[in-house]
Amino acid sequence: MKIFTESDIRSFIKLNKEVIHIIEDAFKQLVINQVVMPPIMRIDVKENNGEVDVKSAYIPNKDFFAIKVSSGFFYNYQLGLPSANGFMMLISTKTGEPKSFLLDNGYLTEIRTAAAGAIAAKHLAKEAVTTVGVIGTGAQARYQMRALKLVRDYKEIRVYGRLESNVQKFKEEMEAALHITVIPASSPEEVVKLSEIVVTTTPSKSPIIKSEWLHPGLHITAMGSDAEDKQELEGAVIAKSDRYVCDSKAQCLRLGELHHAVREGQMNKAYPVIELGEIIAGKSPGRINDHEVTVCDLTGTGVQDTAIALYAYHLLESFETIGMTVDNHKQLTVM
Amino acid sequence: MKIFTESDIRSFIKLNKEVIHIIEDAFKQLVINQVVMPPIMRIDVKENNGEVDVKSAYIPNKDFFAIKVSSGFFYNYQLGLPSANGFMMLISTKTGEPKSFLLDNGYLTEIRTAAAGAIAAKHLAKEAVTTVGVIGTGAQARYQMRALKLVRDYKEIRVYGRLESNVQKFKEEMEAALHITVIPASSPEEVVKLSEIVVTTTPSKSPIIKSEWLHPGLHITAMGSDAEDKQELEGAVIAKSDRYVCDSKAQCLRLGELHHAVREGQMNKAYPVIELGEIIAGKSPGRINDHEVTVCDLTGTGVQDTAIALYAYHLLESFETIGMTVDNHKQLTVM
Repeated sequence: MKIFTESDIRSFIKLNKEVIHIIEDAFKQLVINQVVMPPIMRIDVKENNGEVDVKSAYIPNKDFFAIKVSSGFFYNYQLGLPSANGFMMLISTKTGEPKSFLLDNGYLTEIRTAAAGAIAAKHLAKEAVTTVGVIGTGAQARYQMRALKLVRDYKEIRVYGRLESNVQKFKEEMEAALHITVIPASSPEEVVKLSEIVVTTTPSKSPIIKSEWLHPGLHITAMGSDAEDKQELEGAVIAKSDRYVCDSKAQCLRLGELHHAVREGQMNKAYPVIELGEIIAGKSPGRINDHEVTVCDLTGTGVQDTAIALYAYHLLESFETIGMTVDNHKQLTVM
Repeated sequence: MKIFTESDIRSFIKLNKEVIHIIEDAFKQLVINQVVMPPIMRIDVKENNGEVDVKSAYIPNKDFFAIKVSSGFFYNYQLGLPSANGFMMLISTKTGEPKSFLLDNGYLTEIRTAAAGAIAAKHLAKEAVTTVGVIGTGAQARYQMRALKLVRDYKEIRVYGRLESNVQKFKEEMEAALHITVIPASSPEEVVKLSEIVVTTTPSKSPIIKSEWLHPGLHITAMGSDAEDKQELEGAVIAKSDRYVCDSKAQCLRLGELHHAVREGQMNKAYPVIELGEIIAGKSPGRINDHEVTVCDLTGTGVQDTAIALYAYHLLESFETIGMTVDNHKQLTVM
């Protein structure tokens, strides 16, 4: 079995067009292939404000599938530690044997999540986009803006964050990295009203975006909500949009924005929900004109994890000097 | 992070009274403590006759909890490989960080499962037992008989298996290991009628034990059924028993013998089901006389996995020369 660490993985796996293509294909497999994607396993550790998710998906005819463990422990900052942790395992689909551990500390999740945002924009945003908005200033906000730049050649970012110092850091980093202008906004409303694409990247538990802020041509990608109690859009945002798309209907009905829209009585469960993979597979159109308001609801799926893990493994495996081989039957010596 | 392999683990972790005590406490925690035990995640790989289960449980006030991946790929024998694989991970309940990988290839599952069988017999079998029966001749049949010997000083085993050569091997090994007599039986019926305790250890998909074979004083532990389609007891066995006990009510209603008894109309869901932990915690009696017929339905629980993984980790950790330390942030060198 091969073990790779965060440093190995960060050195060789980058957020680029190839990764976007890999994740796009994963969403397509979900629709055209007999992918086995079980419900997310969740373990809450309430006494330490922690949550652990296990995700997985088996894509037929692939050599391996991934099981991913990811956690968020929100008191970790008190210990000077990042709140997020995570790793992926690749299991042989021929024999069930574990083949690789990717100890990425959540890095692969960041890039497969950002790739999904780019894919949503690719199919649902207007072709010509000058201004994009982002709500949230964390690592995923940065990755989303980087990924978006690979599919739309935008010129400026309107950003809203609660802490001015974080907004300033975001501005400096993104302007240097992407050669665009970053303009801090005084409210989420300002971001939404002035942008053609808006990405929400927060762990919010109450809706941030209101339906009265929607305007023709707007595309929103809400990627923060990945648990029952998280919500970034009020239900009416989905109800009033012209085209609502999600990563996985089953998952979004349980823990995405859709589930809140249903709960609020804005939608019913029979509403014809489009999955991102259906658009990629050509079974449903993406945006059809420059006036539509489109919304994409991303909860993060096991099939993305299997796709990114397979991609990372095959790339890392090709460099023989990377990683560590462990015979899981033999005694180990101390390093 | 610390990594231990099968060889490390087999050398130091043995099936003994301490392990039985550890697993007994785990069942008790399930009843007296706020254990978080999510439903089993299952990934079926039908094209290769494979199945992968993920189990987990968080026991409050423990430093770590386990996530276990276990698989059965039933064409593996064609490749000269064992069908079962598996490993456990320990995650910090303080920070969510991965702390250890126990690459046991299913060994810890074997012993925590056997321990559960011994615990069932300890509380539900008669005190004085001469003859025990086992249906199945695989590794778990052996572990069950070893574990049972730690709680009941039986003198002979009646064994039934479909392959005579396997029965013969079982007989030789068990007679040498346990200093008892092993007598092959010509049918499951013979095993049940002549034994005071019967353990079923098969992956059967149709019932093996019939209710007309039950006799006063009999205790049955059915540990084979761990999936919806597996069944070792006809529903009437549970319905006609005086005391039916299971490891987890929620799990047994979904995939244990209980679920078949309900499906067959022999039981209804309102039937007062006793969990093993309730007996251990003193909330419900075990066997109350030598005439009762008792049944214990074991599906295998995440709380057993967390308990055995914690036990193994702390024991292995105490030997500083065992295992391998990996910094999951730093680059790894090839071994």
